Amino acid sequence: MSEERTEVSSLGEFGLIDHLTQNNETRNAGTILSVGDDAAVIDQFGRQTVITTDLLLEGVHFDLMYTPLRHLGYKSVVVNLSDVCAMNAIPTHITVSIGISNRFSVEALDEFYEGVYAACEKYNVDLIGGDTSSSLKGFVISITAIGEVAPDKFVTRSGAKKGDLICVSGDLGGSYLGLQMLEREKKIFLESPAVQPDLENRAYIVGRLLKPEARLDIIQWLAEKEIVPTSMIDISDGLSSELKHICQKSEVGAVVYDEKLPIHTETKEVAMEFEIDATTCALSGGEDYELLFTVPQSEYEKITLSEKISVIGYVTEASEGLHLITRQGRKHELHAQGWNALKG
Amino acid sequence: MSEERTEVSSLGEFGLIDHLTQNNETRNAGTILSVGDDAAVIDQFGRQTVITTDLLLEGVHFDLMYTPLRHLGYKSVVVNLSDVCAMNAIPTHITVSIGISNRFSVEALDEFYEGVYAACEKYNVDLIGGDTSSSLKGFVISITAIGEVAPDKFVTRSGAKKGDLICVSGDLGGSYLGLQMLEREKKIFLESPAVQPDLENRAYIVGRLLKPEARLDIIQWLAEKEIVPTSMIDISDGLSSELKHICQKSEVGAVVYDEKLPIHTETKEVAMEFEIDATTCALSGGEDYELLFTVPQSEYEKITLSEKISVIGYVTEASEGLHLITRQGRKHELHAQGWNALKG
Repeated sequence: MSEERTEVSSLGEFGLIDHLTQNNETRNAGTILSVGDDAAVIDQFGRQTVITTDLLLEGVHFDLMYTPLRHLGYKSVVVNLSDVCAMNAIPTHITVSIGISNRFSVEALDEFYEGVYAACEKYNVDLIGGDTSSSLKGFVISITAIGEVAPDKFVTRSGAKKGDLICVSGDLGGSYLGLQMLEREKKIFLESPAVQPDLENRAYIVGRLLKPEARLDIIQWLAEKEIVPTSMIDISDGLSSELKHICQKSEVGAVVYDEKLPIHTETKEVAMEFEIDATTCALSGGEDYELLFTVPQSEYEKITLSEKISVIGYVTEASEGLHLITRQGRKHELHAQGWNALKG
Repeated sequence: MSEERTEVSSLGEFGLIDHLTQNNETRNAGTILSVGDDAAVIDQFGRQTVITTDLLLEGVHFDLMYTPLRHLGYKSVVVNLSDVCAMNAIPTHITVSIGISNRFSVEALDEFYEGVYAACEKYNVDLIGGDTSSSLKGFVISITAIGEVAPDKFVTRSGAKKGDLICVSGDLGGSYLGLQMLEREKKIFLESPAVQPDLENRAYIVGRLLKPEARLDIIQWLAEKEIVPTSMIDISDGLSSELKHICQKSEVGAVVYDEKLPIHTETKEVAMEFEIDATTCALSGGEDYELLFTVPQSEYEKITLSEKISVIGYVTEASEGLHLITRQGRKHELHAQGWNALKG
């Protein structure tokens, strides 16, 4: 081993990926899109296949103290399907690998797989393989999802053009506040186990965290209306962070309006309860698994036909950077503070 | 969670997979082969894609005390490519996901990826994606490999017929003895750190463990000679265990001759040194990543043209079970004792 030591933390997750893949060569003509988007695209004799994979580790990505195994199985599949959808593709197959310590019983794994199968059923996806292994400690989940897309109809992060409308599906910030809620109840429980959790009227945001959905419905609606986004990404790390990815890859800037950000009433209420700004949650809270995409201005009327899609801003030149226009009309620079940053 | 508790160990790895996938439904017409072979096969408008995935965990699958990271990167890719080859397919793409604790530096990851890229180059495979994550403890590796095969030319575990010849590529048992060697040196080192490891003249078996190869050359040779195996599997758990999989799936029995088992001179020497029977190592030692396959008797002459392939026995009726004929002509029942069983 070399004597130098560079800490991984000095590069950050995206810096590390860039570093490790900087010399990656593509040898097969069928490789259309490699590392660096929500999923890869390979061409197989004219048909295009989308592939994505996610690794989920206990203690890093989930806490079994408040995550039912059924929900965990469901969510583990959904976060991968969400990446397939973010390529404008239809998910078709998954593989599921798990590493388990002897702390897990067969019954516990059955619950996890009930969630996996429920997601397969809901999204019409086939579980076609995987690997099971023992682990020394903790639960390890690795899922790969495969999808299909008509030739050259996949949508990357890099096609946004100046003047395009910035759209987002569903609402934002709920999952982050769901997490705050559960973390608070966990702390109370650890201090006084007799106290019952107080999650009444908070089903929406807790559900956003524990059982998110992939927006396949949006992909299908866009196809139906013949709208092809110029760029797309799913929101796993937070709106600001994902918008920054689109802007960097597309070499554009963006303006987003605070008042246009879709935020659920319950999210607003809980934000007030926690004395956090709801806009900050919408911008930087992650794990909403909504789709962020851009469309040409000419699609404005069609886009407004969907109640599930909000137009939140527009694409500018790269030199103009990323900005948020507040309700007071002030212009603030948008910092791509992801999930982890907010957490720490 | 339910109140019953069944230990995973009571089912074993294969029993657990059967249990968890017993109600698995296939929804997509394109799913040709699902859970239960070396890889899955999906049809994409007439072309067939093979997919396989493996999870490798530090302390379970590898020991970083004697596994150079470059070799680990190489091997992690190779074990997946070996599964693709075992379907009679050509590997084309991989995704690599890693989970790392802060004990790993960027330089350490560079070494790991050097091995990953070396395998990609050797096998003409593209790295197209993956995931990086922090882990609380240990190094987690999850790789998915994709390959292609001409329509309906994939080979499963289930096509062996009575009278077929049982063939194996390369030689067996080396990797298991390489592991014994390294475990012995580790123990000596931990007791007396000043003692230098004594691995002289043991490069072959240590190499078999640390830097195995996928037998793509065999797949290519079989294609060239127009030999289509009736069944095939790669040897990750040991010859007996893999042969048992073929017999179960094909509903046949098998006879294997001790004297026909290909064993390298160095493997024999080290087996004697450790006072282990070399045949036992060949039958039950895992991680050789050779191909075990069956061909019709009519292919006998063609098969003998390859020095890399040994004919070790023949397929019988299921009712005759699995047997080994010793050098003394005695018939012993073959028990499928895998890698882990031998290890314990």
